[in-house]
Amino acid sequence: MDAQPNDHCSIQQTLDQVGDRWTLLVLRDIFRGYRRFSHIQADLGIARNLLADRLARLVDAGILTKVPYSQRPPRFEYRLTPKGRDLSVPLIALMHWGDHWCADDRPPVLLVHHECGTPLDVAITCPVCDDEVAAPDIRSLPGPGRTMENQATA
Amino acid sequence: MDAQPNDHCSIQQTLDQVGDRWTLLVLRDIFRGYRRFSHIQADLGIARNLLADRLARLVDAGILTKVPYSQRPPRFEYRLTPKGRDLSVPLIALMHWGDHWCADDRPPVLLVHHECGTPLDVAITCPVCDDEVAAPDIRSLPGPGRTMENQATA
Repeated sequence: MDAQPNDHCSIQQTLDQVGDRWTLLVLRDIFRGYRRFSHIQADLGIARNLLADRLARLVDAGILTKVPYSQRPPRFEYRLTPKGRDLSVPLIALMHWGDHWCADDRPPVLLVHHECGTPLDVAITCPVCDDEVAAPDIRSLPGPGRTMENQATA
Repeated sequence: MDAQPNDHCSIQQTLDQVGDRWTLLVLRDIFRGYRRFSHIQADLGIARNLLADRLARLVDAGILTKVPYSQRPPRFEYRLTPKGRDLSVPLIALMHWGDHWCADDRPPVLLVHHECGTPLDVAITCPVCDDEVAAPDIRSLPGPGRTMENQATA
């Protein structure tokens, strides 16, 4: 068991980009519609230097993009890129887990389907069997990105 | 905008329990079948004191349970509780995001349905419309756990 091959693990690569509590809270705020430094800062009560650092990393990673909203003084707002918008699935999955296990199934916020108002579900599904799949029914196999270098871990 | 009401947010409550890079990597290893301190430590290359701290917190949070596997010397392994097993959904969602955005859709590991071998999907779905739902079609509403105390945030 060697730590090196884990560098190729997609969970580890994801956590390298967003696996930090402040980063995930900043992203939650941006999904909620907070786009400006001062609004996010006031909402989270985060130190300005920490927020500047997290936003710069998210821009560098291509998860957020800076869009000017004022020329004088120069001011920017932060918007999700397609890469950032795709984080809605893991973020909502984390939220649902908290709704069930930390909020006794009485969530403070419900996320619903805009069209019909039904509370949404996040699940692992099999596209062929069209079924929800539970952890014991999941098997791992080497994927197309497996190399000699990372084949020690599965 | 006041930081206090965010304490009731389910994402924040979840991150209080698992929102730390090492904690998520420890959980990934346990999902993979590593159950013993020495195996997780060797796989992650994490300092022993940090690993002991993360495991103790996960046991305190009811996410892991300690099961003895040797009396002399006393030795334990760590197993997921039902609360811990439910973290498979957010962890697989994080992994899929990394497969797509960090591994160019060439994942080193494929998670497949045990029955039919099909690679699994993680998605936000509407149980009524039976459709996958994208971020722009999601609306947030006050939930049953919303109180006067936390109604400033949605």
